[in-house]
Amino acid sequence: MKAKNLLHLFEQVNAFWDPHVVADLNGQEMKVAKFKGIFPRHLHEEEDECFLVVKGHFTMRFDDYVEEVSEGSFIVVPKGVYHQPEAEEEAWVLLFEPASTLNTGNTENAFTKRNLKQL
Amino acid sequence: MKAKNLLHLFEQVNAFWDPHVVADLNGQEMKVAKFKGIFPRHLHEEEDECFLVVKGHFTMRFDDYVEEVSEGSFIVVPKGVYHQPEAEEEAWVLLFEPASTLNTGNTENAFTKRNLKQL
Repeated sequence: MKAKNLLHLFEQVNAFWDPHVVADLNGQEMKVAKFKGIFPRHLHEEEDECFLVVKGHFTMRFDDYVEEVSEGSFIVVPKGVYHQPEAEEEAWVLLFEPASTLNTGNTENAFTKRNLKQL
Repeated sequence: MKAKNLLHLFEQVNAFWDPHVVADLNGQEMKVAKFKGIFPRHLHEEEDECFLVVKGHFTMRFDDYVEEVSEGSFIVVPKGVYHQPEAEEEAWVLLFEPASTLNTGNTENAFTKRNLKQL
């Protein structure tokens, strides 16, 4: 039960769209991820997902609208809803979601990450 | 699915040790709380609890050691572990825990809050 500093954790992440697990609790995980560029559109059948921006900002594209998520803000994407994160500039994002959550949801592609690194 | 800004949420909280719910997902809740002073020692029988400091810092006292949690840092307190948060100066803390979590855990006292406000 040591405190962990978010900025120090993000500094250990060297690739975009590569979530690293920083905590697990109640079957959920907290992950840190660096976003830059366009991530493939997908949904999660069973998992709601929270994105909290620690540094920078990004855009969440839904099928019928677009939401900007600024530094210090968060957005919850409910299960079953298609979404596409996009970051023009590098953004540092803290994720809260069930441990079962696959980053590309119901799709499988070059962005898919399994067996995430633990920090 | 609108983005919410943490600082704007905290600005709507007018009392210390009065958690307000700002998101629910997967049976969990995110809450914002302002800490100042000493909160009663307690444990949660069934719930792990995450405390993320958005502004300021606080101390988490365990029975056998003390951990400082600085701004931008978080600590996870596993279920079953006695803990006592304390903040010498006002601290703004984001909580991530099961919706079932009672703030004073296995104790009931003047700090106990039920039917939390939603923001």
